[in-house]
Amino acid sequence: MTTLAPQADAPHKLAELNPPKRLLFGPGPTQVHPRIYEVMSKPIVGHLDPFFFQVTTEIRDLLQPVFGTQNPFTIAISGTGSAGMEAAVSNFVESGSKVAVFANGYFADRISEMARRQDGHVVRFEKPWGEVYSDSEAVEFIRRERPQVVAYVTAETSTGAFQKGKAICDAAHEIDAVVIADCVTSLGAMPVEVDKTGIDVAYSCSQKGLSCPPGLSPITVSPRALSHLKSRKTVNHSWYLDLTLLADYYEGAHRYHHTAPITLFYALREALNLVAEEGLDQRLQRHYRNHKRLVKGLEEMRLRMHVPEQHRIWNLNTPLVPEGVNDANVRARLLKDQGIEIAGGFGPLAGKVFRIGIMGPLATEEKVDFFLQEFRKALAAEGYKPH
Amino acid sequence: MTTLAPQADAPHKLAELNPPKRLLFGPGPTQVHPRIYEVMSKPIVGHLDPFFFQVTTEIRDLLQPVFGTQNPFTIAISGTGSAGMEAAVSNFVESGSKVAVFANGYFADRISEMARRQDGHVVRFEKPWGEVYSDSEAVEFIRRERPQVVAYVTAETSTGAFQKGKAICDAAHEIDAVVIADCVTSLGAMPVEVDKTGIDVAYSCSQKGLSCPPGLSPITVSPRALSHLKSRKTVNHSWYLDLTLLADYYEGAHRYHHTAPITLFYALREALNLVAEEGLDQRLQRHYRNHKRLVKGLEEMRLRMHVPEQHRIWNLNTPLVPEGVNDANVRARLLKDQGIEIAGGFGPLAGKVFRIGIMGPLATEEKVDFFLQEFRKALAAEGYKPH
Repeated sequence: MTTLAPQADAPHKLAELNPPKRLLFGPGPTQVHPRIYEVMSKPIVGHLDPFFFQVTTEIRDLLQPVFGTQNPFTIAISGTGSAGMEAAVSNFVESGSKVAVFANGYFADRISEMARRQDGHVVRFEKPWGEVYSDSEAVEFIRRERPQVVAYVTAETSTGAFQKGKAICDAAHEIDAVVIADCVTSLGAMPVEVDKTGIDVAYSCSQKGLSCPPGLSPITVSPRALSHLKSRKTVNHSWYLDLTLLADYYEGAHRYHHTAPITLFYALREALNLVAEEGLDQRLQRHYRNHKRLVKGLEEMRLRMHVPEQHRIWNLNTPLVPEGVNDANVRARLLKDQGIEIAGGFGPLAGKVFRIGIMGPLATEEKVDFFLQEFRKALAAEGYKPH
Repeated sequence: MTTLAPQADAPHKLAELNPPKRLLFGPGPTQVHPRIYEVMSKPIVGHLDPFFFQVTTEIRDLLQPVFGTQNPFTIAISGTGSAGMEAAVSNFVESGSKVAVFANGYFADRISEMARRQDGHVVRFEKPWGEVYSDSEAVEFIRRERPQVVAYVTAETSTGAFQKGKAICDAAHEIDAVVIADCVTSLGAMPVEVDKTGIDVAYSCSQKGLSCPPGLSPITVSPRALSHLKSRKTVNHSWYLDLTLLADYYEGAHRYHHTAPITLFYALREALNLVAEEGLDQRLQRHYRNHKRLVKGLEEMRLRMHVPEQHRIWNLNTPLVPEGVNDANVRARLLKDQGIEIAGGFGPLAGKVFRIGIMGPLATEEKVDFFLQEFRKALAAEGYKPH
């Protein structure tokens, strides 16, 4: 290769990148903390540099308490929350595994789909989107089905409902099943309590409760689940997400696997440091307080919530779209007038709910009040009479 | 969930992130351009925001000429180069597919491993690490094996050897096979020429020839390969890397798939804009010139190159470790004294070669001369007499 052939037409230079300023009140990505933007401009090091492994160790130490776990295997997957979900499913579901899914929302459907792609035998306990499972019905389902893997979603972003996990985990452990819990929306904003609940595999994302840009998926795996992993009969179809290879990279030998996205690890470290500075309990309480404030404000404008009070996610709220109002118009107006992003419902909830995230830097009284004021205006402009 | 239980022990706040300043003369990640650090601090938008899709469209338009293709399906995978490799393999290899791999280095081994994990039937044309394939032997191999998929590595980062692809692609197309080419190290630093060569699926990374941080994998797929994809008999085991789902997200419908790592897309756009500003041919020539300058300097200190002149990668150079010198000591000294990172060999080349990357902002006369001076010093300190 000593000659140089010209390539296709030369590309044209673009204008400077100039993103619009958004207030991210949707289900995620949410507002990034200014200090996180700052650390992402720090110089990268190599993916085998001792400094990189210092950062991954610090991330593990800071992640454990946020997950509520002492699992030594606590890392970040080099992909988004969906990659974390696929890591959980592909490592613990193999051909013929029976997988019991608590199916009350979109992300439970995604888990089911991923499990089928691993040739797992999926059995589903279906409920309407927004409902949750009582302890007794959860236990009954698991005892009846006797699966090898149980999966549920702690905070179902598509519905706004929070599912308790203790009874699920206890019943699963009676029959030696591995419990996978989707913590994508809960981590950093609601208590996750992996060890206390008995969750074996919990994964999350960087761009919701942790206020980072998207791109990493924190995951923690119990020693129990790791021993199940060792007794797999087949090799994981995925090389990129194979946790045994990732263990060799992040732990002990630091054997090269992939080139980790170092900048996003800097971001995650800073995000977790912000949690530590604020205090985890203080942070969770701040989300709870501002959830209550938001709901009060919504109810004051005569909106009703889709999920009963005791089952609501704190940081992702789903008021019903009032009759006669077109939710897409309201959302478009908020985006156009104030740069405010919220989301609509989808699947069975399309057109029926708004999805409003109150997370990280936006989980403050001032921001919630500002949001309520603008939301009220946008609804009124679409013909709704808030009182 | 209206009560708040305390979590495990509170984490302790860490000191400010203070990465050491490195000069990344290794195989990658390589030095990030200052303007790329700048754009990563710009505010993110949502993964379904019209602005995000404006950015992905711009990226496609800028990527096409760098890949040397007019493929409409030209996107970035939300994972590192290894995720791009797994996207290529998992979409085009299904259970029972016969996969012919040109196996002359580590990344060809990785492709083989991934193809086996898809239950593909892998046949390998093995050569010692650093050698390449002549047109006639490549054609003979493909005609004999008659595979459904052919895979080769354009720039084999583990050896420093560049493999021409035209004869491989022509022979593969005679039997309607899909050609996967690993362009992880070549893109942005050497001519890739996807269309002219006849490559069907080419993937790369962000952190080598494009001078971004790691985390994205540009990939381009020919219309021919897309029609093969449509006639798959089984569904891809991977949901995260399923190109049919990614097509629905990035093209036409913009149907939600995953939450793309927006910040890294900003970075990739800026990197491609830098290529457009410099001019692609100018950029490639700059890499070629500085490759020649480096090799001349290495030969002046009596070092020999592992790969014959006509088969060398421009941006990744593999001089042999001189007899009596411990390569790990040389590398440790460079890192300690000057913050210079280079890599050693591994597998059959462990202890036998250095791997020196001259890419992006480091592919200048000044940086090459500085590197040569420091490399000479480090070798001398380890007992080598450069003349």
